Amino acid sequence: MTDSHRISPNALRVRRMGIDTYQEPVVYMRADCHICKSEGFEAQSRITIRNRDRSIIATLNVVHDQQLLELDETGLSEAAWRLLRPDAGGRVVLSHPAPLESLSHVRAKVYGQRLGDIEMAAIVGDIAAGRYADIHLSAFITACAGSRLDPAETTALTRAMIDVGDRLSWPEPIVVDKHCVGGLPGNRTTLVVVPIVAALSLTMPKTSSRAITSPAGTADTMETLAPVNLDIAAMRKVVEREGGCIVWGGSVQLSPADDVLIRVERPLDLDSEGQLVASVLSKKAAAGSNHVVIDIRVGPTAKVRSDVAAKTLGQRLIDVGREVGLNVRVVVTDGSQPVGRGVGPALEARDVLAVLRGEKTAPQDLRVRALRLAAAILEMSGKVSPGNGLDEAAAVLDDGRAWKKFQAICDAQGGMREPRVAAYTHVVTAPRAGRVVSIDNRRLARLAKLAGAPKATAAGLELHTPLGTQVAAGQPVLTVHADAPGELAYALQYLESQKPIVTLGDNR
Amino acid sequence: MTDSHRISPNALRVRRMGIDTYQEPVVYMRADCHICKSEGFEAQSRITIRNRDRSIIATLNVVHDQQLLELDETGLSEAAWRLLRPDAGGRVVLSHPAPLESLSHVRAKVYGQRLGDIEMAAIVGDIAAGRYADIHLSAFITACAGSRLDPAETTALTRAMIDVGDRLSWPEPIVVDKHCVGGLPGNRTTLVVVPIVAALSLTMPKTSSRAITSPAGTADTMETLAPVNLDIAAMRKVVEREGGCIVWGGSVQLSPADDVLIRVERPLDLDSEGQLVASVLSKKAAAGSNHVVIDIRVGPTAKVRSDVAAKTLGQRLIDVGREVGLNVRVVVTDGSQPVGRGVGPALEARDVLAVLRGEKTAPQDLRVRALRLAAAILEMSGKVSPGNGLDEAAAVLDDGRAWKKFQAICDAQGGMREPRVAAYTHVVTAPRAGRVVSIDNRRLARLAKLAGAPKATAAGLELHTPLGTQVAAGQPVLTVHADAPGELAYALQYLESQKPIVTLGDNR
Repeated sequence: MTDSHRISPNALRVRRMGIDTYQEPVVYMRADCHICKSEGFEAQSRITIRNRDRSIIATLNVVHDQQLLELDETGLSEAAWRLLRPDAGGRVVLSHPAPLESLSHVRAKVYGQRLGDIEMAAIVGDIAAGRYADIHLSAFITACAGSRLDPAETTALTRAMIDVGDRLSWPEPIVVDKHCVGGLPGNRTTLVVVPIVAALSLTMPKTSSRAITSPAGTADTMETLAPVNLDIAAMRKVVEREGGCIVWGGSVQLSPADDVLIRVERPLDLDSEGQLVASVLSKKAAAGSNHVVIDIRVGPTAKVRSDVAAKTLGQRLIDVGREVGLNVRVVVTDGSQPVGRGVGPALEARDVLAVLRGEKTAPQDLRVRALRLAAAILEMSGKVSPGNGLDEAAAVLDDGRAWKKFQAICDAQGGMREPRVAAYTHVVTAPRAGRVVSIDNRRLARLAKLAGAPKATAAGLELHTPLGTQVAAGQPVLTVHADAPGELAYALQYLESQKPIVTLGDNR
Repeated sequence: MTDSHRISPNALRVRRMGIDTYQEPVVYMRADCHICKSEGFEAQSRITIRNRDRSIIATLNVVHDQQLLELDETGLSEAAWRLLRPDAGGRVVLSHPAPLESLSHVRAKVYGQRLGDIEMAAIVGDIAAGRYADIHLSAFITACAGSRLDPAETTALTRAMIDVGDRLSWPEPIVVDKHCVGGLPGNRTTLVVVPIVAALSLTMPKTSSRAITSPAGTADTMETLAPVNLDIAAMRKVVEREGGCIVWGGSVQLSPADDVLIRVERPLDLDSEGQLVASVLSKKAAAGSNHVVIDIRVGPTAKVRSDVAAKTLGQRLIDVGREVGLNVRVVVTDGSQPVGRGVGPALEARDVLAVLRGEKTAPQDLRVRALRLAAAILEMSGKVSPGNGLDEAAAVLDDGRAWKKFQAICDAQGGMREPRVAAYTHVVTAPRAGRVVSIDNRRLARLAKLAGAPKATAAGLELHTPLGTQVAAGQPVLTVHADAPGELAYALQYLESQKPIVTLGDNR
């Protein structure tokens, strides 16, 4: 009786509403529709929607305007439509979702209890399946923020995130990867490192993230040069052909729970050591890597602010890595200022191109950092004997093999292209002469975001005066790039309302 | 230049979309509209919308279907429309909201820092003004959950919540109030206590909440008997005429930040000692009370589970009360089972009516508890000498003065009415003979909610067998009430899938 009650009469014709609610799936139903009445659904109810063998959970928005929907129709937001993949006009079945038992584990964590493997797996499974509303995701993220996950919980979260998605395997015994823990604008070493090590016949199936709280993620930058939305089959082909790739992790869905968490982490702007470790390592393990170099930047306005914090985080990465079968090597580097000149997807891509092409004006800091990381990977993999990594990496970069490999990777990913140029720019000059004594990376990132990065790919800024530069009064310090006058205005307004992002000291 | 850029060209005609998104305001704009392009707005952007002197912040849903909106139109959800109150077809101005600086305080709290008076006031001010998205509210609630607010932070939160709303004052020097900290189904003592003390000429301007995580709040129950959505002016008239009232706190908006927090607390289902104290005391102080009796129920499945926890919470209420000018007396009582028989708004109202009318079948536990609280208030206020409160309260209840006063209060609030009766009921019987040895209040509440309470006012359950009852096999234990077959089915399905809510012991 229960089953017949739930299956047959609860079907409605489905319509694509053409409303983009970002990634939270929303379902629209008429207030006077028989299912709302019989099931007691109301605005904000969570509803299971079934289309043949697929089902999703969506949040209900109740429609009072009879012109938006027919009485026997239900509407889906863009995200819900993509997830459920119904036929337009076909019938879907709506019902109450089963109670989410894993939310009681989230509550336990909020109240200070520890989460074990089973509880973490239940939470991550429900998250990956899209069963959590945004406020539940927010509560989980908040409960795990800062250093609230201990080593065992971090391992449990990492394992759960690996297990809930696909896991690639490769014929080669050694598969390498790298990751930078930053909070530093710029810093697109990946786009230089991958072609260097791939040119030396190592396998590096690199998946990168889009920006979470920064003005550009590596995937955003790469996308200005080549497609990054490859599925697993396409990614595999690229790696089989070229040895390496740089694709968006969210598109290959190697750690689907992480992708769901990120969409709420971004507007919350919260850091979590445990989630950082789980996010980084789950993606590496799922991509089939077993040797990973992790670069931790330390600086007063970087994500990691002290050597002690870097050491703690590094050890956590090594320990959890060991638990999930990853050989992790940690490199701690200076993070007191941006790497390269550009901040924002296209502007960072230009820095990368200059380094790969060996242009004289290429930012040396980006080149040096990329070589150092490539060297660590080469030595760790056994490809190059200890002490020779740097020379070998530099040789591959300088003789054009890396640039050739990068172009080949872009071609394999769907074709190389030129980064866009912003429609509006504004040059900020030094109010007086002086030496650059500090740069606030957080406010710099904020400025680039207000200018439109990363969504406006050409937006962001160029920093003309790195730490230590002696500037004259009126000399350009920053150029702000924007695609829309509104965004340029907001960025400049922010710049004026704050103390200087680039601080000048005495004139010597 | 910035001002003219932001004000004039960013106006659109406004349309009421007829979409109910519950309380989170949503704004709809076409993807191809000039403002989305020039401002860089996209799905999930937070947007300030101005209508003459009013302005709100809403979340953007981007419309791709050109039939939903004209190019120069923007749509508002029901909540956004109610808050902004525009003229249909009038023009509203859309812009980026100023950055919410108070979110950095929320982050600091998440990371374990303490919040001072200034930070708490900034957070509460932004929350009351509707500037927080639901995920930000969720993060704040989570960061304050359990016992994460210390005494000073709790006082700061309470003060901020009082200061952000209106605060009533009364001519009488002594103004009394009561509150029950429950987690216990049933327990509608307020509806008995207010008429008793008001009949004795004390002033008791009672505001009550709707259900947060329970199947019924006092306001939900009272609403089945009389209107409770009174504004402050209407509430004042009722109290001036009858000495007491029982109205919904959300409608008088005495603690507007609390009302905003509650809408996210409900689906999160999280408890917070600090927020509980602030929520209770801010409403009492804002209502102009100065003598408050707080009843803390202790039981294995009540909100407070041990005498130690009750003592801690009670002391916190007394201490914070003193800081904000409230004389608080705490009464700790048994919370091992529901109070009265009904669980759900209308079913609880029937228990109240039976007690007030002095019916023989009236639940004695509800009567005794109400008398005890009324006695504490009478003695604390000085109205009755110590030791005589219980006799005096019983006299007023037994001779019909309290029932007469209750009817007068209902009339003053807009007219008394009969509670609704549910369309569907199902009787659950004892599988065997035995004595009732325990009742799981949490699962009982869950069952009533699955049956549709509190939104379906007649839904819920009746418990026929309190603790200690000797039942025969086949004897009715529970009756489940529902307004819709779907809800009845879900409630019964939940009942079957769980261990017994009412546990029977040996047959002696």
